[in-house]
Amino acid sequence: MLSSVIQPIYIKSRSSNYGVHFLEKIAHQELFRQHLANKQILIISDENVAKHYLQELMEELADFDIDSLVLPAGEEHKSLGSVEQVTTKLIQSGYTKNTVLLALGGGMVGDLTGLCAALYQRGVDYIQLPTSLLAQIDSSLGGKTAVNHILGKNMLGMVLAPRDVFIDIGMLATLPDREYRSALSEAIKYGLLFDASFFDWIEDNIEVILERERSVVLELVSRSCGLKAHCVQEDEFDQNNYRALLNLGHTLAHAIEQLTEYKHWLHGEAVGIGLVFAVHLSSMQGYLSSDSIDRVLALLKNIGLPTMIDIELDLAELINSMRRDKKNSKGQFKFILLQQIGEPIIDTKVSIDSIKSAIKVIWRK
Amino acid sequence: MLSSVIQPIYIKSRSSNYGVHFLEKIAHQELFRQHLANKQILIISDENVAKHYLQELMEELADFDIDSLVLPAGEEHKSLGSVEQVTTKLIQSGYTKNTVLLALGGGMVGDLTGLCAALYQRGVDYIQLPTSLLAQIDSSLGGKTAVNHILGKNMLGMVLAPRDVFIDIGMLATLPDREYRSALSEAIKYGLLFDASFFDWIEDNIEVILERERSVVLELVSRSCGLKAHCVQEDEFDQNNYRALLNLGHTLAHAIEQLTEYKHWLHGEAVGIGLVFAVHLSSMQGYLSSDSIDRVLALLKNIGLPTMIDIELDLAELINSMRRDKKNSKGQFKFILLQQIGEPIIDTKVSIDSIKSAIKVIWRK
Repeated sequence: MLSSVIQPIYIKSRSSNYGVHFLEKIAHQELFRQHLANKQILIISDENVAKHYLQELMEELADFDIDSLVLPAGEEHKSLGSVEQVTTKLIQSGYTKNTVLLALGGGMVGDLTGLCAALYQRGVDYIQLPTSLLAQIDSSLGGKTAVNHILGKNMLGMVLAPRDVFIDIGMLATLPDREYRSALSEAIKYGLLFDASFFDWIEDNIEVILERERSVVLELVSRSCGLKAHCVQEDEFDQNNYRALLNLGHTLAHAIEQLTEYKHWLHGEAVGIGLVFAVHLSSMQGYLSSDSIDRVLALLKNIGLPTMIDIELDLAELINSMRRDKKNSKGQFKFILLQQIGEPIIDTKVSIDSIKSAIKVIWRK
Repeated sequence: MLSSVIQPIYIKSRSSNYGVHFLEKIAHQELFRQHLANKQILIISDENVAKHYLQELMEELADFDIDSLVLPAGEEHKSLGSVEQVTTKLIQSGYTKNTVLLALGGGMVGDLTGLCAALYQRGVDYIQLPTSLLAQIDSSLGGKTAVNHILGKNMLGMVLAPRDVFIDIGMLATLPDREYRSALSEAIKYGLLFDASFFDWIEDNIEVILERERSVVLELVSRSCGLKAHCVQEDEFDQNNYRALLNLGHTLAHAIEQLTEYKHWLHGEAVGIGLVFAVHLSSMQGYLSSDSIDRVLALLKNIGLPTMIDIELDLAELINSMRRDKKNSKGQFKFILLQQIGEPIIDTKVSIDSIKSAIKVIWRK
């Protein structure tokens, strides 16, 4: 196996410029340790991740002023209640504005930690140490922080760039297979939106990707990060419709997640369903060829991701929930669709009938 | 009585430039109505303010897409729980990112509304309609939003500029006398920090100020806003110690408020005590003349503000609470003191003994 060295990706942001670093042994890296020097450090993690990585990290960083807080795992703990809990810990332990929070975990930990950092004493530093594939290729980049409200995902949050992102793909070793596979839907999404050759590459390499062959995973993660980084740098605050493209498949995914209380499918699985919906709708709107639909379906099936909504859901409720999507404005749907693989288009004129038709194609039989 | 027309004050901010407008009949003002056009509008107020002004405002703005949410009054409702409550209302009523929140109330409503606007769907607009003297001269300017944590005031928040601030001093007519008087401590603070002639003016006009003579109140409010606006524009994000000056008297005030659970004194009263502490400490550190102490004490007494800590408090607890002040770093106190009236100095070398001595001068007898 080649010892691949991937150059960092740098992202320009309003509050700071930051790097996405692909490294091993992060605790021993000079740049990482510089960020911690003379700071009060709190690692925030969840039970699933902490049992694998927390003790070792605490020991490696024992020469710093460091403590940790472990939250229960699960999307339902990405809540204002957890923000309150983190804040209690910070105040009780005397953390000042000279604090850096380390987000050691997946998207839930990263999004929550970012928001706590944004809010605590009106803003302290945070660093992303993403441990899941979903966090490494998606949620740790772009500075979107959030917690969920019982009525909607990511309803409360803000955009605040991390100090830096450090990605060790070795941490994926302990990631359950279902989580690993589901996150591939986000990588596929980047290919569908921005880079047909990346979509081709995933198709061609899906077997070794699923076997988690190291150099292939490194290519998967770093190419995904490169595509997302370009997108968020062009439109950090969702102002020019560029970042909105990342919503491909997500309007339906968020609605399903909300109606099933985030319990039935993992986020990536819901996004997979959302991608299937999006390519069908793209075809119905006259944009996408049926050949492309077949390729997307085949790839998702190869990964073992669901491609049909095989659960009890009320169609009207589902559409109402889609209508509440943050990306819409004034109750008007804004769909990200595809003209072809690698060429997105924004369509604000999709009729309710078309939406229903596209959902019915993937509705349980 | 002269019909005084005060020019708006404009504040440059990272996210937007905004104006502080001194106007009557705000609901009929063209600029205000432009901000509301084609927006989903939610007025947020509290029970005390709503009973005087909400119905009329709703009627005057009936041609817009507008609704309201009235919270219980009191600092204890400036909490993450209230953020959750506002969010529930927004989601249930279908508010999108195309929302503007109107903060109709004092500091509690303004700080909370600003934070809700900052967080809802990662950021919507808000407008300040401050109704208390404290909000009109202090909290509505500068974009500091926050909620309290049970262990500390304003522990969770962020800096986000409002779309604009509209001040109608006519709304002070219904403000209880105790609230009006207590807020004068913040105006005095601006004089002490930045403008000796403004301090002189307050001294000279204190009787008509207390009688709320319209043109005098307008001068009081607009001059205060001018001083604060200059300060926050120079240092929006607390980066160069300029905005920290506004903390004069506040380290002790926040500690007292926290230990008495915000129940014994109004914020302005606690700040008054804090100013007395600050001038004594300034003198003990060799900066300020005793003549200046006498002037500050006399003015506060004239207004009827407390100048002694006449409640049961534990001195060690009080100092511990002061140590947790957001403006400190690494447990080191950072005191804003005065060299003379109008000339502040930052002192990070104040000993615990000096702090105790200055507190004992104002300790209950």
